[in-house]
Amino acid sequence: MSYRENPRPGGRSARVQAAVHQSVRDMLATMDRADVTIPLIAQRANVTPSTIYRRWGDLQELLADVAASRLQPESEPARIGSARRDLEVWVEQYADEMASGVGRQMLRDVLSAADGANAERCSGYTQHQLAALIARAQKSGEPFPTQAELMDHVISPIIYRILFDQAPGADYVRELIAKVMPQS
Amino acid sequence: MSYRENPRPGGRSARVQAAVHQSVRDMLATMDRADVTIPLIAQRANVTPSTIYRRWGDLQELLADVAASRLQPESEPARIGSARRDLEVWVEQYADEMASGVGRQMLRDVLSAADGANAERCSGYTQHQLAALIARAQKSGEPFPTQAELMDHVISPIIYRILFDQAPGADYVRELIAKVMPQS
Repeated sequence: MSYRENPRPGGRSARVQAAVHQSVRDMLATMDRADVTIPLIAQRANVTPSTIYRRWGDLQELLADVAASRLQPESEPARIGSARRDLEVWVEQYADEMASGVGRQMLRDVLSAADGANAERCSGYTQHQLAALIARAQKSGEPFPTQAELMDHVISPIIYRILFDQAPGADYVRELIAKVMPQS
Repeated sequence: MSYRENPRPGGRSARVQAAVHQSVRDMLATMDRADVTIPLIAQRANVTPSTIYRRWGDLQELLADVAASRLQPESEPARIGSARRDLEVWVEQYADEMASGVGRQMLRDVLSAADGANAERCSGYTQHQLAALIARAQKSGEPFPTQAELMDHVISPIIYRILFDQAPGADYVRELIAKVMPQS
């Protein structure tokens, strides 16, 4: 359902999506999650419940879509120093955000949906940020890990710890990065 | 709530747990998941709904408890050859199970609960199996990765791929293991 991801800006589809997403965000901020239902979301967004069912299928898919949209980064990783330093700072911030209460809830929402499309979207956002850092390293000629190394050996262990274990600390994050960094 | 994990065998608490778990498993096997409710589970298990609410809190926590129990391994990793070979076979089987429809659903159930206790339990089962393999390697004097290396660099990337990306293949699993294996 690609129109879900890229509705024509300003079109009816985009307006419905924006209204529904906003309603979900407002309701999650003020209500108990268990009380959030599609009829209430529809009422608040001023659309019919069947519009929501037709487009998202069920509440879980809608919550996953909203969560994935919130996980979309607003800007490129900050430029602080070397590509390695930028990577360290970005990954530490990423780990902190994902380990926070809001981050965990968004991960749960994304992963609860039976359709894996929103989970793939989230992973895509992460890969996009890493690609920007890799491009900086290439430009400056710094030795740098590959995207697969970063995904498998830095991002994956961080997310595993957040989901199944204790939240990772900054030292742990730096050790993971040191391990994949090529010796220059 | 430690009694949840280890109710006195044969006691009322253990009997209630067994009946409720069995009812959930039977219902999930035959009904649409969205139709499974606490009142229906209670009816089938012959307990009151309030017994379930008191003990598990909500449906999501109950589903997470049942899923974690199903993820508990029934036996030690198979003895096939060297500790490395045993590890490869065990990890490939683990990756296949977790990537299957049933495995994904159990992961989703475990991770959907707000309480992370069942997710930690699952990670504990995995660590227990790896500890058995590490003990074999120590006994036979084979060089072998540490538990932290296996969790961070073999289990984590496999689970990340299953949750966010494409299911990992056997080649990928063997590459991850080769990477953490100390050079003998």
